[in-house]
Amino acid sequence: MTSAFQFTLDGQCGSARVGRLATPRGTIKTPAFMPIGTQAAVKAMFPDAVRETGADIILGNTYHLMLRPGPERMARLGGLHAFMNWLGPILIDSGGFQVMSLSKLRQISEEGVTFQSHVDGSRHLLTPERAVEIQCQLGSDIQMVLDECTAYPVGEREAQESMELSMRWARRARDAFARRPDALQFGIVQGSVFENLRKRSTEWLLDIGFDGYAIGGLAVGEGPQMTRQVLDWVTPILPDDRPRYLMGVGKPADIVAAVRQGVDMFDCVLPTRSGRHGQAFTRDGPLNLRNAGFAEDQDPIDAECRCPACRHYSRAYLHHLFRVGEYLGPMLLTWHNLQFYQDLMHEIRASIAQGTFDDFRFLRGETWTSGTGGL
Amino acid sequence: MTSAFQFTLDGQCGSARVGRLATPRGTIKTPAFMPIGTQAAVKAMFPDAVRETGADIILGNTYHLMLRPGPERMARLGGLHAFMNWLGPILIDSGGFQVMSLSKLRQISEEGVTFQSHVDGSRHLLTPERAVEIQCQLGSDIQMVLDECTAYPVGEREAQESMELSMRWARRARDAFARRPDALQFGIVQGSVFENLRKRSTEWLLDIGFDGYAIGGLAVGEGPQMTRQVLDWVTPILPDDRPRYLMGVGKPADIVAAVRQGVDMFDCVLPTRSGRHGQAFTRDGPLNLRNAGFAEDQDPIDAECRCPACRHYSRAYLHHLFRVGEYLGPMLLTWHNLQFYQDLMHEIRASIAQGTFDDFRFLRGETWTSGTGGL
Repeated sequence: MTSAFQFTLDGQCGSARVGRLATPRGTIKTPAFMPIGTQAAVKAMFPDAVRETGADIILGNTYHLMLRPGPERMARLGGLHAFMNWLGPILIDSGGFQVMSLSKLRQISEEGVTFQSHVDGSRHLLTPERAVEIQCQLGSDIQMVLDECTAYPVGEREAQESMELSMRWARRARDAFARRPDALQFGIVQGSVFENLRKRSTEWLLDIGFDGYAIGGLAVGEGPQMTRQVLDWVTPILPDDRPRYLMGVGKPADIVAAVRQGVDMFDCVLPTRSGRHGQAFTRDGPLNLRNAGFAEDQDPIDAECRCPACRHYSRAYLHHLFRVGEYLGPMLLTWHNLQFYQDLMHEIRASIAQGTFDDFRFLRGETWTSGTGGL
Repeated sequence: MTSAFQFTLDGQCGSARVGRLATPRGTIKTPAFMPIGTQAAVKAMFPDAVRETGADIILGNTYHLMLRPGPERMARLGGLHAFMNWLGPILIDSGGFQVMSLSKLRQISEEGVTFQSHVDGSRHLLTPERAVEIQCQLGSDIQMVLDECTAYPVGEREAQESMELSMRWARRARDAFARRPDALQFGIVQGSVFENLRKRSTEWLLDIGFDGYAIGGLAVGEGPQMTRQVLDWVTPILPDDRPRYLMGVGKPADIVAAVRQGVDMFDCVLPTRSGRHGQAFTRDGPLNLRNAGFAEDQDPIDAECRCPACRHYSRAYLHHLFRVGEYLGPMLLTWHNLQFYQDLMHEIRASIAQGTFDDFRFLRGETWTSGTGGL
């Protein structure tokens, strides 16, 4: 880790860790939830509001930003932070997942992946080196290596070939990155649901040596038990002094479970996407505000929440907004859901610091077990 | 005017007036521009932000709110102000215009207008009395009488019949309103483009006696010259001590022209609708931020504007937001456009108060004449 960056553990409770990742653009309290700002904006949110919920860092995406506005243009415009008015740290995903899920006519070779843009059909080549270059042009504080995001389910042989390609790419990405030391770079553990592959991938990355380690290829339908299993294989062999990032996970219960296994960083579209579709997270479980039953419900979404949706509005009003299709519905509910996630992370951190995380509860009247708890 | 309300003129410059309309929910500085909150929300704006631009009053709509959430439901929920968290005054339009422009299978009789909802096809009867009742249930601070919004163009005979029906409805609306004295009620001058009809309509309303007078049936394609002509017929015979409201107008240049003719209140969808479609108002003329020419434009929309879009973002960023379809584009640009309109009104008021309104300029490098000035 370069000198401007510092990862400090402040406490531990079982395998759960509480700490701080200091960066030149601000300190990230861990365990951290990173709201997603795929296309240089957290959807339906002003950056001030994202910050107000308690977020220290947001996520950007190489795939989307290389297509629009384009990395060279972004560099000319002064980089992503100034462009979108988010002055805190930004982690930029490598785009491997989006190439697989969004683009057309993909061709994967040793060199990299060729694909057609889902926007205009234009052809692009993404290599491990190019992904590093793009993330430098965007101004990423935490870069992710380009990986092949293995499909699920997949046979062991195919999973192995895919993982090994990703590890060779990780090596090349690390070499490319070494010449630009103003950011962190995380490697990504692959290997699908196979213990030997996951462990070999982890050791391979440790051998290369990264500033942090992500666990990828999950949240693709394998279920929370398998996520737990993969973390059981991987996290015990990761070094204590590097941050650990579980990509794309997830539901509040899954986050709590992964923190118990020693994960420090999370991202997920759930709070923002659910917010745009009328789904509210609450400590009593999820609410679908589109339901007619809320038409005259004068209660706030959650009386204990301090977000503007809960301080100033009834469920009846939010129901109305979603019914008539007003922008303000997604604006208020995204804010609430991001507040919910940041409150969750805040209480997780406090609980670990106090050594009470074994008894941690966030939902009212329910225990947290992985895979339960709705949403 | 009931005692809780007070209209005070503080200055005059030619026919232009500057004043204050005091209401129990706050004072409206005039000339005033009222942002439109048709469906219990100003589109893509938090109420705090609407207030921050300088707006004292917003507009609601009987037609939309009687369909969703419905007036009885709104009354049970404590009225429109609490529902939408706008605690300042609200003027609620009677719905006459929307019945004509949105609903299906309209039938107009002496009693009122029967129509089918554009949302679900349900049948509704709107009478002058029912429009008063609905506006009371919503909690309107300034009520508008139900009128028949005459089509344009229209023959004189049809215009006369329509105007006379609207005036008989105005009489009934005033009688219905008299039993509920906690708001103001404005009459609406009709009569299309015919001098004798406009004057007879005005005198008819004066004979009934209202708290304020609106000029309706304009902004329907007749053009700024005709608007000016109608105001020339009508405003000289309106009493000085009552506010005058030109409905649905309009472009900045048209507002300035109408203020010169003695109008005090305005509403228009332009700033909000344009904002959702990438059109920015500036003192140098309109900008269409969707244009590719803005893709690397690092300037703000308007360097002198204090809205968040101008303080924190480049035209290039706004271009990007509209290009990729992010919510934040309409959020930022609506804010900017409403700020532009409120700054215009602020400078109009200051100019009248200083007695310099004859030389009033708001656009840079251009004079204001009705019908010019783009947008």
